[in-house]
Amino acid sequence: MSQIPDFSEKTPLLPAIAQDFASGQVLMLAYMNRESWEQTLATGEATYFSRSRGKLWKKGEQSGHVQRVREIYVDCDADTILLRVEQVGAAACHQGYESCFFRKLDQGAVTIVGKRVFDPDQVYDDKDS
Amino acid sequence: MSQIPDFSEKTPLLPAIAQDFASGQVLMLAYMNRESWEQTLATGEATYFSRSRGKLWKKGEQSGHVQRVREIYVDCDADTILLRVEQVGAAACHQGYESCFFRKLDQGAVTIVGKRVFDPDQVYDDKDS
Repeated sequence: MSQIPDFSEKTPLLPAIAQDFASGQVLMLAYMNRESWEQTLATGEATYFSRSRGKLWKKGEQSGHVQRVREIYVDCDADTILLRVEQVGAAACHQGYESCFFRKLDQGAVTIVGKRVFDPDQVYDDKDS
Repeated sequence: MSQIPDFSEKTPLLPAIAQDFASGQVLMLAYMNRESWEQTLATGEATYFSRSRGKLWKKGEQSGHVQRVREIYVDCDADTILLRVEQVGAAACHQGYESCFFRKLDQGAVTIVGKRVFDPDQVYDDKDS
């Protein structure tokens, strides 16, 4: 029986989906290692592992837009995590949108359909958070 | 400007989230390569790339539980895909549940909360689909 979730040498990083607890909107996908998972459990706020920066990344550490974890699910293979969260600040995306999935594709055309909540230049020194 | 989605030599497989179009329930996460992406666009039904089998995997090819794609979104980094689908057969999970995320974690305890729609032994010769 594998661990739940199944962090291993082969899969030290697992994808974690954040879904808005109230609306059901899928907000973002990021990655967790065991340490970020344990921090998430301990604090009740989502902490991921930033692949680009190679370190733990507490969501909202710069912007204040933390994610309060309301429910946690693990999939059948124990290699994907689903967090149902309360998104503080109403925006999960570092580009200022409610959801990172603000671009819709249709017949090859890309349309921005998401709602922009803030201007990133007013919130971040750099692009991460 | 990177391609949308950004399949590359470095990231030939991108995670794809399937969300139920009607209910908003997150059904599963699988992976796509460029070929599975193109097949999904061409057929209107979700095709993934099975990492365990190393080949294209038309969702529902054995079970008949195909996913009719109603909307496609790509995230801010163009490295995660979100499909909003109509799940034929009402079950996305090969274990017979509506969603692969049928296990809820709470204070270290794992509870099965998902609805089981079918018995996998009656549907599959093997465990995939």
